[in-house]
Amino acid sequence: MPKALIVYYSRSGNTKAIAEDIAAAVTQEGLAVDLRSVEKVQPAELSNYQLIICGGPTYYGGAPYQIKQLLDETVKFHGQLDGKVGGAFCSSANIAGGNETTLFSILNAFLIHGMIIQGDPRGDHYGPVAINAPDDRCRSGCRRYGQRLARLTKQLFGD
Amino acid sequence: MPKALIVYYSRSGNTKAIAEDIAAAVTQEGLAVDLRSVEKVQPAELSNYQLIICGGPTYYGGAPYQIKQLLDETVKFHGQLDGKVGGAFCSSANIAGGNETTLFSILNAFLIHGMIIQGDPRGDHYGPVAINAPDDRCRSGCRRYGQRLARLTKQLFGD
Amino acid sequence: MPKALIVYYSRSGNTKAIAEDIAAAVTQEGLAVDLRSVEKVQPAELSNYQLIICGGPTYYGGAPYQIKQLLDETVKFHGQLDGKVGGAFCSSANIAGGNETTLFSILNAFLIHGMIIQGDPRGDHYGPVAINAPDDRCRSGCRRYGQRLARLTKQLFGD
Amino acid sequence: MPKALIVYYSRSGNTKAIAEDIAAAVTQEGLAVDLRSVEKVQPAELSNYQLIICGGPTYYGGAPYQIKQLLDETVKFHGQLDGKVGGAFCSSANIAGGNETTLFSILNAFLIHGMIIQGDPRGDHYGPVAINAPDDRCRSGCRRYGQRLARLTKQLFGD
Repeated sequence: MPKALIVYYSRSGNTKAIAEDIAAAVTQEGLAVDLRSVEKVQPAELSNYQLIICGGPTYYGGAPYQIKQLLDETVKFHGQLDGKVGGAFCSSANIAGGNETTLFSILNAFLIHGMIIQGDPRGDHYGPVAINAPDDRCRSGCRRYGQRLARLTKQLFGD
Repeated sequence: MPKALIVYYSRSGNTKAIAEDIAAAVTQEGLAVDLRSVEKVQPAELSNYQLIICGGPTYYGGAPYQIKQLLDETVKFHGQLDGKVGGAFCSSANIAGGNETTLFSILNAFLIHGMIIQGDPRGDHYGPVAINAPDDRCRSGCRRYGQRLARLTKQLFGD
Repeated sequence: MPKALIVYYSRSGNTKAIAEDIAAAVTQEGLAVDLRSVEKVQPAELSNYQLIICGGPTYYGGAPYQIKQLLDETVKFHGQLDGKVGGAFCSSANIAGGNETTLFSILNAFLIHGMIIQGDPRGDHYGPVAINAPDDRCRSGCRRYGQRLARLTKQLFGD
Repeated sequence: MPKALIVYYSRSGNTKAIAEDIAAAVTQEGLAVDLRSVEKVQPAELSNYQLIICGGPTYYGGAPYQIKQLLDETVKFHGQLDGKVGGAFCSSANIAGGNETTLFSILNAFLIHGMIIQGDPRGDHYGPVAINAPDDRCRSGCRRYGQRLARLTKQLFGD
């Protein structure tokens, strides 16, 4: 069964709540899920997972530097994430407050690793976004995102 | 006194309503404003204005092709918009439905023309976004955006 | 065996040459490939393919409006491309001339359709880019991109 | 006379070389220029400058986390950079290796601060990019970028 890592940076708890919703949906699809705050993740561990979903609050249109530091440090094993599945989520104080650019600050790094990403024809197309505390719209989007990426991972890596 | 062109593509009227709010704010700052639907704008006319603000609904993460066609056709006078002020706005059905990428599909074209753009430390940072019909949050953001870009234009081109 | 559509807009022939290189690599992987200029593609046809790769020259930081028109018109069958594989390529006159934003003007639309995209840990990470006429670096990247996306498509849709 | 800060992160020296070229051009326009490595810049200092240009190597499609940390920490004085002029530059190993997304990882943060940015109708439209060591093309683009942003700053803040 494939393994999934959900990494988050959260200060207010809003981003952590999204991460938990996504993790629950991925677990329900049968994957083994590790849910961890970014400071507890070693870069080299990422290669143990077939699905990596990463998120944080929107800080100046990008993921917080702690997330970027983790991404930067993955250069040591560049090439090993090729073909794995990736995803991103974020929280924000504003509707057009830099949320999409934050999602892409993570998704772009995953693409540069050769990873596979998927959008959604419904809801938040590039990845789930919470405006302040996650509401029902956001939480339902998180479950849907986790389910979709878990299914794609099973399709690619077997179950 | 500098002149401003507000160009929009609108089918439901949502984007047109945003355009009108922005136009009202720019007018209030004393600029001469032309507010026009995209099919009534000739590419060569853009060089008559010191401020150009352009918007449309979010179609697959970008401005509608009618807007893109206008932008593509400005290549005939490439260089003449250098140093002018530009802005963008959009409407959408979803919070993270491609709004920011739509704003940048217009702003990037303006940057490639050598134009000047400005963000906002409050609200929708890259440009005003309506989720469905523009609500008070959006309309107040539109007025603020129009005011800020008009003032920047006056600072650069005199009044 | 899955089917692939390679769509391009080309005036100088540079983008067409990239499209042909990608098409050759996808064919070599055993997929049935249709290579077509954008004006010869009906939006509804896209749902016949498991792999869709689309490209054009860099016009003001995005794909030409003819490509955007095709993408806009796919809204009629929104949802039917969910889970298919997508890719993008472009040509340009400048190294940082808007190439990456052009690739994303296509990739973002595919994500909004729920499609699956993949980056590359080597070379042009988001998709192949030609600076003027495609050189060896670009052509080798095109073959690699076609091969990778074809293999991903076979993994997802069988062969 | 307005003051300019050029901030860079550089390990190989390639990005530092770009920073020096930009700094020379800004100095030649008569601005007082501070050129500093990112670890020697305190976030609060940014508000002392009318022009801030920031750059680094392309790491996974964005600026290095050290640059992002500086940007994140500017939140303490959010609002004070409103109306100032910003710019970005980067170095990279690949033509479409994430350079444009790296420029925007900085430019987006500046827009969110309410800052003013400008593109260029010639060359690297969004900001100067070096592929490996800066060649003549890049160095000439750097001087041009520094000159353009310095002139815009003088236009807005007097000289």
